[in-house]
Amino acid sequence: MILIGERINGSFKDIGAAIKEKNKAPIQDWARKQTEAGADYLDVNLGAVSKSPEDFHWLIETACEAVPTPLSIDCNKLDLMRVALEAYRQIAGARPLVINSTTAEDSKLMPLVELAAQYDGGLIGVVMDERGSPQDIDRRVELGAKIFAVAMEAGLPPEKIFLDPIVMPLKFMQEQGKNVLEAIRQFAMISDPPPHISIGLSNAASKAEERALINRTFLVMAMTAGCDAAICNVMDAELMNAVATAELVLNKEIYSDSYLKAHRKRG
Amino acid sequence: MILIGERINGSFKDIGAAIKEKNKAPIQDWARKQTEAGADYLDVNLGAVSKSPEDFHWLIETACEAVPTPLSIDCNKLDLMRVALEAYRQIAGARPLVINSTTAEDSKLMPLVELAAQYDGGLIGVVMDERGSPQDIDRRVELGAKIFAVAMEAGLPPEKIFLDPIVMPLKFMQEQGKNVLEAIRQFAMISDPPPHISIGLSNAASKAEERALINRTFLVMAMTAGCDAAICNVMDAELMNAVATAELVLNKEIYSDSYLKAHRKRG
Repeated sequence: MILIGERINGSFKDIGAAIKEKNKAPIQDWARKQTEAGADYLDVNLGAVSKSPEDFHWLIETACEAVPTPLSIDCNKLDLMRVALEAYRQIAGARPLVINSTTAEDSKLMPLVELAAQYDGGLIGVVMDERGSPQDIDRRVELGAKIFAVAMEAGLPPEKIFLDPIVMPLKFMQEQGKNVLEAIRQFAMISDPPPHISIGLSNAASKAEERALINRTFLVMAMTAGCDAAICNVMDAELMNAVATAELVLNKEIYSDSYLKAHRKRG
Repeated sequence: MILIGERINGSFKDIGAAIKEKNKAPIQDWARKQTEAGADYLDVNLGAVSKSPEDFHWLIETACEAVPTPLSIDCNKLDLMRVALEAYRQIAGARPLVINSTTAEDSKLMPLVELAAQYDGGLIGVVMDERGSPQDIDRRVELGAKIFAVAMEAGLPPEKIFLDPIVMPLKFMQEQGKNVLEAIRQFAMISDPPPHISIGLSNAASKAEERALINRTFLVMAMTAGCDAAICNVMDAELMNAVATAELVLNKEIYSDSYLKAHRKRG
């Protein structure tokens, strides 16, 4: 399972303030904590706090200084993404990278696929386009296949392509849960080897009372369907235990009585 | 989800002693507690304590006296099963019933299917035969299809047929987890409407350290694949919460912020 820590995001109050004040401590603290908790990548996102390339450069540099963990560069402005990727390669050298994200819209997909190829990064492709987010399975799979084909065409191998089926809040779009699970199952059959399948987990429990329970149950279900990556709260120990256990059942990690400890040490 | 409470089984010390001493209290206590926890059926099994028809009659009567919850009559001796079913119909009238269980062996399958038809009971069919428990997916599905066909032929409708893919202990047969999940998925496609798919959950965590975590993770994964019934520890509140949450995701129960309470009250 590829775990992408969600916490370095300007939408969180402490990170937003840290970006404004150029205060490295909270960012580096979350970089370390998430890494220790087992994050394979750290998502970095300015949120609504800033659109400045200098701020993004500073944020990336600050995170990279603290830990050797690869980053997931998270931004929906193409120009800002371009600057951020150049900054990351200057700062972090050949460190792995995920670009978060493109959609299936041609005007986004083509340039982001090129950037992924140019900077040797993984690319998360969210299955929406100019018509918005699909509500059904077929449209999700159609857009996933399009993203996959365009990325392969540009030379990205399957292991650099992350398809995101768009998890919807259970509270407001309950009927979408099954569709997302079935879309994941079909993404896994797009090629052999398949692309990665990544979800933005916390959206599942948006505005719900039982957030942690819904998130960990949904992630186990998504893993059963074939999901192998998630942007999530890696600090949630019960979520991490559920992931470790699902990986045992799927025979991706070897059983030992102390498998939970082994999984935590992996980080 | 059809939940079958596993606790009234002579293999548990307190129940074994209660059967020997003809002490109703522990049995009726577990009957009430499991019913309150949400059990749809109570499994009753003499274990190794007795093979006596009188004891089975007494056990069934004792459970039926305490609660109106239907029983799952659990026994692998055909003669004993015959007596128990007759006793159950005398004692409980038209109360629903599950017969636990047949295998795919002709010498068991034919008479048990007849008994299910005669006593209007559900029938759990475990996908093993004279060659033992299958290790692969295909053989599981083959035996499941055989049980289903024989039962249908005898007039049992799909909703009375419960296929059991045989859950193996993760600790000792880790590679079987994926096979069981895929067999469940294929069972669900045997007919439309499909048969029920039932698992003996506690076997998944047999001899493991993290029993509760493994059981609830495995059950959520099995439900994702199409399992809709389980013999399990219904007294495990976290297991019940995981079931309630998975049912929300699968859109089988309607979301409310207090869905956990609603699920518990269902019992």
